Amino acid sequence: MTNAGPGRPRLTKQRRPGPTAQAEILDAAAELFTTKGFASTSTRQIAEVVGVRQASLYHHFATKDDILAALLEQTVTPAMELATRLADRAEAAPERLYALALFDSRQLMSGRWNLGALYLLPELRTERFAQFRRERVRLRAQYEILARAVLDELDRPGDTALAGLPFRLVETIINERSDRESDETDRGPDPVDQPALVADAALRVLGWPGEITQLRAAAERILADATGPRP
Amino acid sequence: MTNAGPGRPRLTKQRRPGPTAQAEILDAAAELFTTKGFASTSTRQIAEVVGVRQASLYHHFATKDDILAALLEQTVTPAMELATRLADRAEAAPERLYALALFDSRQLMSGRWNLGALYLLPELRTERFAQFRRERVRLRAQYEILARAVLDELDRPGDTALAGLPFRLVETIINERSDRESDETDRGPDPVDQPALVADAALRVLGWPGEITQLRAAAERILADATGPRP
Repeated sequence: MTNAGPGRPRLTKQRRPGPTAQAEILDAAAELFTTKGFASTSTRQIAEVVGVRQASLYHHFATKDDILAALLEQTVTPAMELATRLADRAEAAPERLYALALFDSRQLMSGRWNLGALYLLPELRTERFAQFRRERVRLRAQYEILARAVLDELDRPGDTALAGLPFRLVETIINERSDRESDETDRGPDPVDQPALVADAALRVLGWPGEITQLRAAAERILADATGPRP
Repeated sequence: MTNAGPGRPRLTKQRRPGPTAQAEILDAAAELFTTKGFASTSTRQIAEVVGVRQASLYHHFATKDDILAALLEQTVTPAMELATRLADRAEAAPERLYALALFDSRQLMSGRWNLGALYLLPELRTERFAQFRRERVRLRAQYEILARAVLDELDRPGDTALAGLPFRLVETIINERSDRESDETDRGPDPVDQPALVADAALRVLGWPGEITQLRAAAERILADATGPRP
Protein backbone atom coordinates (compact mmCIF):
# COMPACT_ATOMS: atom_id res chain seq x y z
CA MET A 1 0.00 0.00 0.00
CA THR A 2 1.57 3.26 -1.06
CA ASN A 3 -1.56 5.35 -1.48
CA ALA A 4 -0.92 7.51 1.56
CA GLY A 5 0.44 10.36 -0.52
CA PRO A 6 2.07 11.08 -3.84
CA GLY A 7 5.16 8.90 -3.92
CA ARG A 8 5.45 8.62 -0.14
CA PRO A 9 5.40 5.23 1.50
CA ARG A 10 3.06 5.13 4.49
CA LEU A 11 4.53 4.75 7.97
CA THR A 12 2.64 1.56 8.78
CA LYS A 13 0.24 -0.90 7.20
CA GLN A 14 -3.34 0.21 6.65
CA ARG A 15 -5.15 0.77 9.95
CA ARG A 16 -8.48 2.22 8.84
CA PRO A 17 -11.14 0.88 6.46
CA GLY A 18 -11.42 2.57 3.09
CA PRO A 19 -10.35 2.06 -0.53
CA THR A 20 -8.16 5.18 -0.63
CA ALA A 21 -5.98 7.16 1.74
CA GLN A 22 -8.61 9.88 1.61
CA ALA A 23 -11.31 7.46 2.79
CA GLU A 24 -9.06 6.25 5.61
CA ILE A 25 -8.48 9.83 6.75
CA LEU A 26 -12.21 10.52 6.69
CA ASP A 27 -12.95 7.39 8.73
CA ALA A 28 -10.37 8.26 11.37
CA ALA A 29 -11.55 11.87 11.56
CA ALA A 30 -15.18 10.74 11.84
CA GLU A 31 -14.30 8.57 14.83
CA LEU A 32 -12.32 11.31 16.56
CA PHE A 33 -14.87 14.07 15.85
CA THR A 34 -17.79 11.97 17.14
CA THR A 35 -16.03 10.46 20.17
CA LYS A 36 -13.59 13.19 21.31
CA GLY A 37 -15.21 16.23 19.71
CA PHE A 38 -14.35 18.38 16.69
CA ALA A 39 -12.62 21.22 18.55
CA SER A 40 -10.65 18.75 20.67
CA THR A 41 -9.22 16.86 17.67
CA SER A 42 -6.10 18.01 15.84
CA THR A 43 -4.99 17.07 12.32
CA ARG A 44 -1.87 15.63 13.96
CA GLN A 45 -4.04 13.21 15.93
CA ILE A 46 -5.96 12.25 12.80
CA ALA A 47 -2.70 11.54 10.93
CA GLU A 48 -1.45 9.43 13.86
CA VAL A 49 -4.63 7.35 13.97
CA VAL A 50 -4.47 6.74 10.21
CA GLY A 51 -0.75 6.01 10.40
CA VAL A 52 0.36 8.57 7.81
CA ARG A 53 2.58 11.62 8.00
CA GLN A 54 0.83 14.92 8.63
CA ALA A 55 2.19 16.15 5.27
CA SER A 56 0.35 13.31 3.53
CA LEU A 57 -2.85 14.30 5.28
CA TYR A 58 -2.42 17.91 4.13
CA HIS A 59 -2.04 16.65 0.57
CA HIS A 60 -5.64 15.42 0.75
CA PHE A 61 -7.20 18.05 3.04
CA ALA A 62 -5.71 21.50 3.55
CA THR A 63 -7.52 22.07 6.87
CA LYS A 64 -9.50 20.29 9.56
CA ASP A 65 -12.56 22.22 8.37
CA ASP A 66 -12.15 20.65 4.92
CA ILE A 67 -12.26 17.19 6.50
CA LEU A 68 -15.42 18.08 8.43
CA ALA A 69 -17.04 19.54 5.31
CA ALA A 70 -16.32 16.32 3.36
CA LEU A 71 -17.80 14.19 6.16
CA LEU A 72 -20.93 16.33 6.43
CA GLU A 73 -21.46 16.20 2.68
CA GLN A 74 -21.40 12.39 2.87
CA THR A 75 -24.44 12.54 5.15
CA VAL A 76 -26.54 14.60 2.74
CA THR A 77 -25.42 13.74 -0.81
CA PRO A 78 -26.91 10.22 -1.15
CA ALA A 79 -30.34 11.35 0.11
CA MET A 80 -30.20 14.42 -2.14
CA GLU A 81 -29.38 12.25 -5.17
CA LEU A 82 -32.30 9.97 -4.36
CA ALA A 83 -34.63 12.95 -3.86
CA THR A 84 -33.66 14.28 -7.29
CA ARG A 85 -34.46 10.92 -8.90
CA LEU A 86 -37.73 10.63 -6.95
CA ALA A 87 -38.87 14.01 -8.28
CA ASP A 88 -39.02 12.52 -11.80
CA ARG A 89 -40.84 9.33 -10.88
CA ALA A 90 -44.50 8.58 -11.43
CA GLU A 91 -45.31 6.84 -8.13
CA ALA A 92 -47.77 8.45 -5.73
CA ALA A 93 -46.37 11.05 -3.31
CA PRO A 94 -46.85 8.92 -0.14
CA GLU A 95 -44.75 6.12 -1.66
CA ARG A 96 -41.98 8.49 -2.71
CA LEU A 97 -41.91 10.32 0.63
CA TYR A 98 -41.81 6.99 2.46
CA ALA A 99 -38.94 5.84 0.22
CA LEU A 100 -36.91 9.01 0.89
CA ALA A 101 -37.51 8.89 4.67
CA LEU A 102 -36.65 5.18 4.85
CA PHE A 103 -33.47 5.52 2.77
CA ASP A 104 -32.24 8.59 4.63
CA SER A 105 -33.03 7.10 8.07
CA ARG A 106 -31.22 3.88 7.22
CA GLN A 107 -28.20 5.81 6.09
CA LEU A 108 -28.10 7.93 9.26
CA MET A 109 -28.54 4.77 11.35
CA SER A 110 -25.97 2.59 9.59
CA GLY A 111 -23.00 4.83 8.86
CA ARG A 112 -19.95 3.71 10.84
CA TRP A 113 -20.03 6.94 12.88
CA ASN A 114 -22.99 9.04 13.99
CA LEU A 115 -21.99 12.06 11.90
CA GLY A 116 -25.38 13.73 12.25
CA ALA A 117 -24.36 14.44 15.85
CA LEU A 118 -22.10 17.14 14.37
CA TYR A 119 -24.97 19.08 12.73
CA LEU A 120 -25.55 21.31 15.75
CA LEU A 121 -21.90 22.35 16.21
CA PRO A 122 -21.60 26.15 16.37
CA GLU A 123 -18.55 25.84 14.11
CA LEU A 124 -20.94 24.94 11.26
CA ARG A 125 -22.39 28.45 11.23
CA THR A 126 -19.26 29.91 9.66
CA GLU A 127 -18.87 30.80 5.98
CA ARG A 128 -16.73 27.68 5.44
CA PHE A 129 -19.82 25.48 5.85
CA ALA A 130 -22.28 27.66 3.93
CA GLN A 131 -22.32 25.19 1.05
CA PHE A 132 -23.14 22.28 3.36
CA ARG A 133 -25.92 24.29 5.02
CA ARG A 134 -27.37 25.11 1.59
CA GLU A 135 -27.28 21.43 0.60
CA ARG A 136 -29.13 20.50 3.75
CA VAL A 137 -31.72 23.22 3.16
CA ARG A 138 -32.18 21.85 -0.38
CA LEU A 139 -32.73 18.34 0.99
CA ARG A 140 -35.23 19.67 3.52
CA ALA A 141 -37.05 21.45 0.68
CA GLN A 142 -37.31 18.13 -1.21
CA TYR A 143 -38.93 16.53 1.84
CA GLU A 144 -41.35 19.44 2.10
CA ILE A 145 -42.33 19.27 -1.59
CA LEU A 146 -43.20 15.59 -1.22
CA ALA A 147 -44.97 16.18 2.10
CA ARG A 148 -47.08 18.97 0.61
CA ALA A 149 -48.01 16.67 -2.26
CA VAL A 150 -49.18 14.09 0.31
CA LEU A 151 -51.22 16.78 2.11
CA ASP A 152 -52.77 17.85 -1.22
CA GLU A 153 -53.70 14.24 -1.92
CA LEU A 154 -55.39 14.04 1.49
CA ASP A 155 -57.23 17.32 0.81
CA ARG A 156 -55.38 19.05 3.63
CA PRO A 157 -53.48 21.68 1.61
CA GLY A 158 -53.94 24.25 4.40
CA ASP A 159 -51.88 22.23 6.87
CA THR A 160 -48.55 23.15 5.29
CA ALA A 161 -46.93 23.64 8.72
CA LEU A 162 -47.04 19.84 9.00
CA ALA A 163 -44.86 19.49 5.91
CA GLY A 164 -41.69 20.20 7.91
CA LEU A 165 -42.20 17.25 10.26
CA PRO A 166 -41.04 14.29 8.11
CA PHE A 167 -37.53 15.80 7.75
CA ARG A 168 -37.42 16.45 11.51
CA LEU A 169 -38.54 12.88 12.26
CA VAL A 170 -35.74 11.47 10.12
CA GLU A 171 -33.23 13.57 12.06
CA THR A 172 -34.41 11.92 15.30
CA ILE A 173 -32.42 8.86 14.17
CA ILE A 174 -29.32 10.80 15.23
CA ASN A 175 -30.59 11.22 18.80
CA GLU A 176 -31.90 7.66 19.02
CA ARG A 177 -28.57 6.31 17.86
CA SER A 178 -26.62 8.52 20.26
CA ASP A 179 -28.73 7.25 23.17
CA ARG A 180 -28.37 3.64 22.06
CA GLU A 181 -24.59 4.06 21.95
CA SER A 182 -24.47 5.54 25.45
CA ASP A 183 -24.31 3.25 28.45
CA GLU A 184 -27.69 4.15 29.99
CA THR A 185 -29.86 2.69 27.24
CA ASP A 186 -30.26 -1.04 26.89
CA ARG A 187 -32.92 -1.79 24.31
CA GLY A 188 -32.27 -5.53 24.48
CA PRO A 189 -31.08 -7.96 21.83
CA ASP A 190 -33.84 -7.17 19.34
CA PRO A 191 -33.98 -3.40 19.02
CA VAL A 192 -36.76 -1.68 17.13
CA ASP A 193 -36.31 -1.09 13.38
CA GLN A 194 -36.06 2.64 13.96
CA PRO A 195 -35.75 3.68 10.27
CA ALA A 196 -39.04 1.92 9.41
CA LEU A 197 -40.66 3.32 12.57
CA VAL A 198 -39.59 6.84 11.59
CA ALA A 199 -40.74 6.47 7.98
CA ASP A 200 -44.14 5.20 9.23
CA ALA A 201 -44.38 8.20 11.56
CA ALA A 202 -43.41 10.62 8.76
CA LEU A 203 -46.60 9.60 6.92
CA ARG A 204 -48.79 9.38 10.04
CA VAL A 205 -48.03 12.94 11.16
CA LEU A 206 -49.34 14.16 7.80
CA GLY A 207 -52.61 12.36 8.53
CA TRP A 208 -52.02 9.58 6.00
CA PRO A 209 -54.60 6.95 6.94
CA GLY A 210 -53.66 3.96 4.76
CA GLU A 211 -52.12 0.54 5.32
CA ILE A 212 -48.42 1.01 6.19
CA THR A 213 -47.30 -2.51 5.23
CA GLN A 214 -48.30 -1.99 1.62
CA LEU A 215 -46.80 1.49 1.52
CA ARG A 216 -43.50 0.17 2.86
CA ALA A 217 -43.43 -2.59 0.24
CA ALA A 218 -44.07 -0.05 -2.52
CA ALA A 219 -41.30 2.18 -1.15
CA GLU A 220 -38.85 -0.75 -1.06
CA ARG A 221 -39.62 -1.44 -4.74
CA ILE A 222 -38.90 2.20 -5.58
CA LEU A 223 -35.60 2.06 -3.68
CA ALA A 224 -34.55 -1.19 -5.36
CA ASP A 225 -35.18 0.43 -8.71
CA ALA A 226 -33.76 3.89 -7.95
CA THR A 227 -30.70 2.93 -5.91
CA GLY A 228 -29.99 -0.68 -6.93
CA PRO A 229 -30.58 -3.71 -4.70
CA ARG A 230 -29.59 -3.36 -1.05
CA PRO A 231 -26.72 -5.67 -0.04
CA MET B 1 -23.97 44.89 43.18
CA THR B 2 -21.52 42.89 45.24
CA ASN B 3 -22.87 39.40 44.63
CA ALA B 4 -19.96 38.31 42.42
CA GLY B 5 -18.25 36.46 45.25
CA PRO B 6 -18.00 36.39 49.00
CA GLY B 7 -16.93 39.88 50.03
CA ARG B 8 -15.38 40.73 46.67
CA PRO B 9 -16.63 43.73 44.74
CA ARG B 10 -17.23 42.92 41.06
CA LEU B 11 -15.00 44.49 38.45
CA THR B 12 -17.82 46.16 36.56
CA LYS B 13 -21.55 46.67 36.76
CA GLN B 14 -23.81 43.72 35.96
CA ARG B 15 -23.53 42.69 32.31
CA ARG B 16 -25.62 39.52 32.18
CA PRO B 17 -29.25 38.87 33.15
CA GLY B 18 -29.86 36.88 36.30
CA PRO B 19 -30.78 37.45 39.93
CA THR B 20 -27.48 36.05 41.28
CA ALA B 21 -23.84 35.91 40.22
CA GLN B 22 -24.35 32.21 39.64
CA ALA B 23 -27.20 32.89 37.20
CA GLU B 24 -25.08 35.49 35.39
CA ILE B 25 -22.24 32.99 35.01
CA LEU B 26 -24.64 30.36 33.67
CA ASP B 27 -26.11 32.79 31.15
CA ALA B 28 -22.68 33.83 29.87
CA ALA B 29 -21.49 30.23 29.67
CA ALA B 30 -24.67 29.20 27.83
CA GLU B 31 -24.04 31.85 25.20
CA LEU B 32 -20.39 30.88 24.74
CA PHE B 33 -21.02 27.12 24.72
CA THR B 34 -23.82 27.41 22.13
CA THR B 35 -22.15 30.00 19.88
CA LYS B 36 -18.40 29.22 20.14
CA GLY B 37 -18.56 25.62 21.34
CA PHE B 38 -17.94 23.96 24.70
CA ALA B 39 -14.38 22.80 24.04
CA SER B 40 -13.44 26.19 22.57
CA THR B 41 -14.61 28.13 25.62
CA SER B 42 -12.41 28.68 28.69
CA THR B 43 -13.48 29.61 32.21
CA ARG B 44 -11.31 32.73 31.77
CA GLN B 45 -13.49 33.78 28.82
CA ILE B 46 -16.67 33.14 30.81
CA ALA B 47 -15.39 35.28 33.71
CA GLU B 48 -14.49 38.06 31.27
CA VAL B 49 -17.92 38.07 29.67
CA VAL B 50 -19.63 38.18 33.07
CA GLY B 51 -17.22 40.85 34.29
CA VAL B 52 -16.01 39.01 37.38
CA ARG B 53 -12.61 37.74 38.47
CA GLN B 54 -11.84 34.12 37.60
CA ALA B 55 -11.49 33.43 41.36
CA SER B 56 -15.09 34.55 41.87
CA LEU B 57 -16.21 32.20 39.13
CA TYR B 58 -14.37 29.30 40.79
CA HIS B 59 -16.18 30.11 44.03
CA HIS B 60 -19.44 29.18 42.29
CA PHE B 61 -18.24 26.45 39.92
CA ALA B 62 -15.05 24.47 40.46
CA THR B 63 -14.74 23.40 36.81
CA LYS B 64 -16.12 24.14 33.34
CA ASP B 65 -17.78 20.71 33.46
CA ASP B 66 -19.71 21.80 36.56
CA ILE B 67 -21.07 24.79 34.65
CA LEU B 68 -22.14 22.56 31.76
CA ALA B 69 -23.78 20.08 34.15
CA ALA B 70 -25.78 22.89 35.80
CA LEU B 71 -26.93 24.19 32.40
CA LEU B 72 -27.95 20.74 31.20
CA GLU B 73 -29.91 20.09 34.38
CA GLN B 74 -31.88 23.28 33.76
CA THR B 75 -33.14 21.77 30.49
CA VAL B 76 -34.51 18.62 32.12
CA THR B 77 -35.54 19.50 35.68
CA PRO B 78 -38.72 21.55 34.97
CA ALA B 79 -40.13 18.89 32.61
CA MET B 80 -39.24 16.15 35.09
CA GLU B 81 -41.01 18.00 37.90
CA LEU B 82 -44.09 18.39 35.74
CA ALA B 83 -43.98 14.70 34.73
CA THR B 84 -43.89 13.71 38.39
CA ARG B 85 -46.95 15.86 39.11
CA LEU B 86 -48.77 14.54 36.03
CA ALA B 87 -48.27 10.96 37.19
CA ASP B 88 -50.58 11.66 40.16
CA ARG B 89 -53.32 13.40 38.21
CA ALA B 90 -56.64 11.95 37.17
CA GLU B 91 -56.89 13.35 33.64
CA ALA B 92 -56.85 10.97 30.67
CA ALA B 93 -53.46 9.90 29.35
CA PRO B 94 -53.73 11.79 26.01
CA GLU B 95 -54.32 15.06 27.87
CA ARG B 96 -51.40 14.49 30.21
CA LEU B 97 -49.02 13.45 27.43
CA TYR B 98 -50.05 16.48 25.38
CA ALA B 99 -49.44 18.72 28.41
CA LEU B 100 -45.95 17.31 28.99
CA ALA B 101 -44.97 17.56 25.31
CA LEU B 102 -46.29 21.12 25.03
CA PHE B 103 -44.59 22.32 28.22
CA ASP B 104 -41.25 20.70 27.38
CA SER B 105 -41.30 21.92 23.76
CA ARG B 106 -42.08 25.48 24.84
CA GLN B 107 -39.24 25.40 27.31
CA LEU B 108 -36.75 24.10 24.72
CA MET B 109 -37.97 26.73 22.26
CA SER B 110 -37.97 29.71 24.59
CA GLY B 111 -34.85 29.39 26.73
CA ARG B 112 -32.44 32.24 26.00
CA TRP B 113 -29.92 29.79 24.51
CA ASN B 114 -30.51 26.58 22.58
CA LEU B 115 -28.94 24.37 25.25
CA GLY B 116 -30.36 21.16 23.79
CA ALA B 117 -27.80 21.59 21.01
CA LEU B 118 -25.25 20.42 23.60
CA TYR B 119 -26.93 17.03 24.20
CA LEU B 120 -24.93 15.27 21.50
CA LEU B 121 -21.50 16.47 22.66
CA PRO B 122 -19.14 13.51 23.11
CA GLU B 123 -17.95 15.16 26.32
CA LEU B 124 -21.34 14.23 27.86
CA ARG B 125 -20.47 10.52 27.74
CA THR B 126 -17.99 10.84 30.60
CA GLU B 127 -18.67 9.86 34.21
CA ARG B 128 -19.02 13.56 35.14
CA PHE B 129 -22.34 13.70 33.29
CA ALA B 130 -23.71 10.32 34.34
CA GLN B 131 -26.24 11.97 36.62
CA PHE B 132 -27.54 14.22 33.86
CA ARG B 133 -27.81 11.24 31.51
CA ARG B 134 -29.78 9.33 34.14
CA GLU B 135 -32.13 12.31 34.63
CA ARG B 136 -32.76 12.46 30.89
CA VAL B 137 -33.41 8.70 30.76
CA ARG B 138 -35.90 9.14 33.62
CA LEU B 139 -37.69 11.91 31.73
CA ARG B 140 -37.80 9.75 28.60
CA ALA B 141 -39.29 6.93 30.70
CA GLN B 142 -42.05 9.29 31.91
CA TYR B 143 -42.92 10.11 28.28
CA GLU B 144 -42.99 6.41 27.46
CA ILE B 145 -45.27 5.53 30.40
CA LEU B 146 -47.80 8.15 29.27
CA ALA B 147 -47.46 7.11 25.62
CA ARG B 148 -48.06 3.45 26.48
CA ALA B 149 -51.16 4.48 28.44
CA VAL B 150 -52.41 6.28 25.32
CA LEU B 151 -51.72 3.18 23.21
CA ASP B 152 -53.58 1.03 25.76
CA GLU B 153 -56.53 3.41 25.60
CA LEU B 154 -56.54 3.07 21.80
CA ASP B 155 -56.37 -0.73 22.08
CA ARG B 156 -52.94 -0.79 20.46
CA PRO B 157 -50.88 -2.16 23.39
CA GLY B 158 -48.72 -4.19 20.98
CA ASP B 159 -47.33 -1.09 19.30
CA THR B 160 -44.99 -0.21 22.18
CA ALA B 161 -42.19 0.71 19.74
CA LEU B 162 -44.24 3.81 18.98
CA ALA B 163 -44.06 4.90 22.61
CA GLY B 164 -40.55 6.31 22.12
CA LEU B 165 -41.61 8.77 19.43
CA PRO B 166 -43.23 11.58 21.47
CA PHE B 167 -39.96 12.21 23.36
CA ARG B 168 -38.04 12.22 20.06
CA LEU B 169 -40.53 14.64 18.50
CA VAL B 170 -40.09 17.08 21.38
CA GLU B 171 -36.32 16.97 20.86
CA THR B 172 -36.81 18.09 17.23
CA ILE B 173 -37.48 21.56 18.67
CA ILE B 174 -33.71 21.80 19.17
CA ASN B 175 -33.00 21.21 15.47
CA GLU B 176 -35.82 23.45 14.31
CA ARG B 177 -34.57 26.25 16.50
CA SER B 178 -30.99 25.81 15.38
CA ASP B 179 -32.07 26.06 11.74
CA ARG B 180 -34.25 29.10 12.43
CA GLU B 181 -31.28 30.81 14.07
CA SER B 182 -28.99 30.10 11.12
CA ASP B 183 -28.96 32.45 8.17
CA GLU B 184 -30.36 30.05 5.56
CA THR B 185 -33.85 29.71 7.01
CA ASP B 186 -36.32 32.54 6.75
CA ARG B 187 -39.73 31.38 7.92
CA GLY B 188 -41.22 34.83 7.56
CA PRO B 189 -42.75 37.18 10.12
CA ASP B 190 -45.31 34.68 11.40
CA PRO B 191 -43.45 31.46 12.12
CA VAL B 192 -45.27 28.26 12.96
CA ASP B 193 -46.12 27.54 16.62
CA GLN B 194 -43.65 24.67 16.66
CA PRO B 195 -44.32 23.53 20.26
CA ALA B 196 -48.04 23.05 19.52
CA LEU B 197 -47.21 21.40 16.18
CA VAL B 198 -44.89 18.96 17.94
CA ALA B 199 -47.36 18.19 20.73
CA ASP B 200 -50.07 17.52 18.09
CA ALA B 201 -47.67 15.20 16.25
CA ALA B 202 -46.74 13.38 19.48
CA LEU B 203 -50.37 12.25 19.78
CA ARG B 204 -50.88 11.63 16.05
CA VAL B 205 -47.91 9.23 15.76
CA LEU B 206 -49.54 7.09 18.46
CA GLY B 207 -52.65 6.85 16.29
CA TRP B 208 -54.72 9.16 18.47
CA PRO B 209 -57.71 10.04 16.27
CA GLY B 210 -59.56 12.76 18.24
CA GLU B 211 -60.05 16.50 17.92
CA ILE B 212 -56.72 18.25 18.63
CA THR B 213 -58.22 21.66 19.51
CA GLN B 214 -60.10 20.22 22.48
CA LEU B 215 -57.11 18.17 23.58
CA ARG B 216 -54.88 21.23 23.51
CA ALA B 217 -57.38 23.23 25.58
CA ALA B 218 -57.55 20.43 28.16
CA ALA B 219 -53.74 20.28 28.28
CA GLU B 220 -53.52 24.05 28.80
CA ARG B 221 -55.90 23.74 31.74
CA ILE B 222 -53.71 21.03 33.25
CA LEU B 223 -50.61 23.20 32.80
CA ALA B 224 -52.29 26.25 34.35
CA ASP B 225 -53.19 24.14 37.35
CA ALA B 226 -49.93 22.15 37.65
CA THR B 227 -47.40 24.89 36.88
CA GLY B 228 -49.27 28.14 37.63
CA PRO B 229 -50.53 30.60 35.01
CA ARG B 230 -48.24 31.34 32.05
CA PRO B 231 -47.05 34.95 31.94
